[in-house]
Amino acid sequence: MTHAETLKIQTRGRGTYEITSAVEEAVGRSGIARGLCNIFLMHTSASLILCENADPTVRRDLETFAARFVKDGDPTFVHDLEGPDDMPAHIRSIFTQASITVPVEDGRCKLGTWQGLFLWEHRTAPHRRTIAVTVMGDA
Amino acid sequence: MTHAETLKIQTRGRGTYEITSAVEEAVGRSGIARGLCNIFLMHTSASLILCENADPTVRRDLETFAARFVKDGDPTFVHDLEGPDDMPAHIRSIFTQASITVPVEDGRCKLGTWQGLFLWEHRTAPHRRTIAVTVMGDA
Amino acid sequence: MTHAETLKIQTRGRGTYEITSAVEEAVGRSGIARGLCNIFLMHTSASLILCENADPTVRRDLETFAARFVKDGDPTFVHDLEGPDDMPAHIRSIFTQASITVPVEDGRCKLGTWQGLFLWEHRTAPHRRTIAVTVMGDA
Repeated sequence: MTHAETLKIQTRGRGTYEITSAVEEAVGRSGIARGLCNIFLMHTSASLILCENADPTVRRDLETFAARFVKDGDPTFVHDLEGPDDMPAHIRSIFTQASITVPVEDGRCKLGTWQGLFLWEHRTAPHRRTIAVTVMGDA
Repeated sequence: MTHAETLKIQTRGRGTYEITSAVEEAVGRSGIARGLCNIFLMHTSASLILCENADPTVRRDLETFAARFVKDGDPTFVHDLEGPDDMPAHIRSIFTQASITVPVEDGRCKLGTWQGLFLWEHRTAPHRRTIAVTVMGDA
Repeated sequence: MTHAETLKIQTRGRGTYEITSAVEEAVGRSGIARGLCNIFLMHTSASLILCENADPTVRRDLETFAARFVKDGDPTFVHDLEGPDDMPAHIRSIFTQASITVPVEDGRCKLGTWQGLFLWEHRTAPHRRTIAVTVMGDA
């Protein structure tokens, strides 16, 4: 049994946006009780992460780290057509993930107590992002 | 056909712990001959990696690298409630993975000759970690 | 319904090699219209990435970045049996991915407009790489 749907997330620019509830609702609509849920981001300048969702300072420190990991406007980059955050966004995306698969049990995502699913926008400007959610398993 | 079970791994603190056999045994119990096996870590301060499993110096060098990649006690981090390794553990986890899907063939994980599955503990203190194993496919 | 096959990719050494079409063809042969396609690289010194496939400078900048991220011949590494690019190849692989799952819709991979699937060879010498493609879903 396969259920597929698409989520649209409007971002306000660089930062993390929790999508756990939106994904949980898709799993609920699937009618699937046991199996797997794949969350797939259809972009190369944002990514998906599983992150602690209790203390917001975790995600603030993550941004501090990422800004140091790959610097906006790095003069060694050739690809800067869309601005100083263009190439860094691709690199942040490649070194994290665009596809995450989560187990489904009793019709819900089987996440750890402090685990949340986040869309991580890497571009400084707001973007409308598309996420494909696919749930497979038994009713 | 879906088979799901949970593995508990006790770590002795920071380091890599091979879980290939434990996952293989779960696949064996599933009775599934062909399909996919998803391994999902229910934590945000440890991760899952596929790594060379022949020469242990690979995993020693990996630790050397990770300690430099994100430094324990970095004063720019705000989130340090659980100590100097708290925020670095979250970052190491996000830049590696918490969910890995492996093909199943002839009732076994179809891994490369030198590929092993490892739980990578990022906290310095011992932790009891929970891994959800989900096998889907045909008998 | 499960379809599995193996792709062989010959690399000419370090660099990115697009495999989108090869994976699409495997999905076509599967006869599966809706579900998931898992692409699994059976090696620990190369990886799989989803990357912008329009402007080739993106992948050139990615190499520039990776060469700085982990340096060939780093004297702190103990594991250098196969040369100065041996341990860096393992680290590049672990910090990206060896397994990517992509949704399948209307018998095709549901990728974003600019998203391409690439094998990223991290060794400087040419290698013959094996990729397991597993498609699961409904006809």
